[in-house]
Amino acid sequence: MLTAKLIGSVWSTRKAEQMLGLKLMIVEIIGGRNAGECMTVVDTIGAGTGDRVIVTTGSSARRMLGDDNIPVDAVIVGIIDEDCELPTCGE
Amino acid sequence: MLTAKLIGSVWSTRKAEQMLGLKLMIVEIIGGRNAGECMTVVDTIGAGTGDRVIVTTGSSARRMLGDDNIPVDAVIVGIIDEDCELPTCGE
Amino acid sequence: MLTAKLIGSVWSTRKAEQMLGLKLMIVEIIGGRNAGECMTVVDTIGAGTGDRVIVTTGSSARRMLGDDNIPVDAVIVGIIDEDCELPTCGE
Amino acid sequence: MLTAKLIGSVWSTRKAEQMLGLKLMIVEIIGGRNAGECMTVVDTIGAGTGDRVIVTTGSSARRMLGDDNIPVDAVIVGIIDEDCELPTCGE
Amino acid sequence: MLTAKLIGSVWSTRKAEQMLGLKLMIVEIIGGRNAGECMTVVDTIGAGTGDRVIVTTGSSARRMLGDDNIPVDAVIVGIIDEDCELPTCGE
Repeated sequence: MLTAKLIGSVWSTRKAEQMLGLKLMIVEIIGGRNAGECMTVVDTIGAGTGDRVIVTTGSSARRMLGDDNIPVDAVIVGIIDEDCELPTCGE
Repeated sequence: MLTAKLIGSVWSTRKAEQMLGLKLMIVEIIGGRNAGECMTVVDTIGAGTGDRVIVTTGSSARRMLGDDNIPVDAVIVGIIDEDCELPTCGE
Repeated sequence: MLTAKLIGSVWSTRKAEQMLGLKLMIVEIIGGRNAGECMTVVDTIGAGTGDRVIVTTGSSARRMLGDDNIPVDAVIVGIIDEDCELPTCGE
Repeated sequence: MLTAKLIGSVWSTRKAEQMLGLKLMIVEIIGGRNAGECMTVVDTIGAGTGDRVIVTTGSSARRMLGDDNIPVDAVIVGIIDEDCELPTCGE
Repeated sequence: MLTAKLIGSVWSTRKAEQMLGLKLMIVEIIGGRNAGECMTVVDTIGAGTGDRVIVTTGSSARRMLGDDNIPVDAVIVGIIDEDCELPTCGE
């Protein structure tokens, strides 16, 4: 999984039927050499802009949605506790 | 998923039988450290050159096509609304 | 998918039983920031050295082979038409 | 798989129901050109901070958990023996 | 798939039960822009240190092992013939 920071939303009116009602957010990877990479993810647990989150990618992402037919490859699976100090990585 | 800009088409007369009739497009990733990476994707929702789109990759991409036997690993799952200002990433 | 140029063959006498008879080729990614990356792919549609091809990776690659038990993660799914001018990417 | 060093924990109170009770750790890749990349992984074999571990990613990671419905894409599958000198890579 | 050079072994006494008896090796990618990346792979065909090999990753790697429940994401699927001159890539 990746640790990332939620930085905003994406709006898409014309999208896959199976994705209607899903909230799409933009996250930026934090920590390590990949910091600064950007992804679009689905949020089903109510994360907000500024939150640090854990993102699962690939086929495992569909496991979060309870429907294997949704064409989604990245979801938020957890919100990192506010008082959690992440270990420094890649230094 | 990835946010990308649709920049053109690819023509392939000799291709997998299961892909006959599928429209193949080239997109360029926008936002974050991966900006400028290039992918070939399938479009089934009528995106046009210049549109900003959301791309799903891997096994999840096949979920967009309603046929798990098509050898495709990247599809457009949504068109980003024209008035959507994407959050700045990787800065 | 990726656009790539077919640059040669790989010979492997000792290989997985399920891969006997499969033609293994080396391709080099063209276009965008990943240009110059190198992959080994299976060709089942008769591409030749110098051809530009479309490559599918991951579990979707097995869909090209009609047998889900072959340990292969990259296949050529199309040959790009000779007169197709690919849009310039990553500039 | 990847060789990595376990550098700490991540705490997430609000997370996927299927992940309740799973221990989430941060690892940093060691060896080769990807050294310094950071990942969040699940540990089920009792690795500790400072241990060098082997990490499996993607759908294969779920095979470690005995439940294909857990939205996890990276798990520790082994602890590298303390007296194992890893071959130098990427030089 | 990737072409890589086998550079040594990894020893892990505490590992996934399903991986008992599997030989874990370190390979270094050769050719192209990813040369120098390092991976841990399973060998079932008797490759030796110094051999150039073909590596399959992801879910396809499990197809090499005849057991879909093994948490492994990279296996050697072939040994490149000694007299095979690989085409130069990424130049």
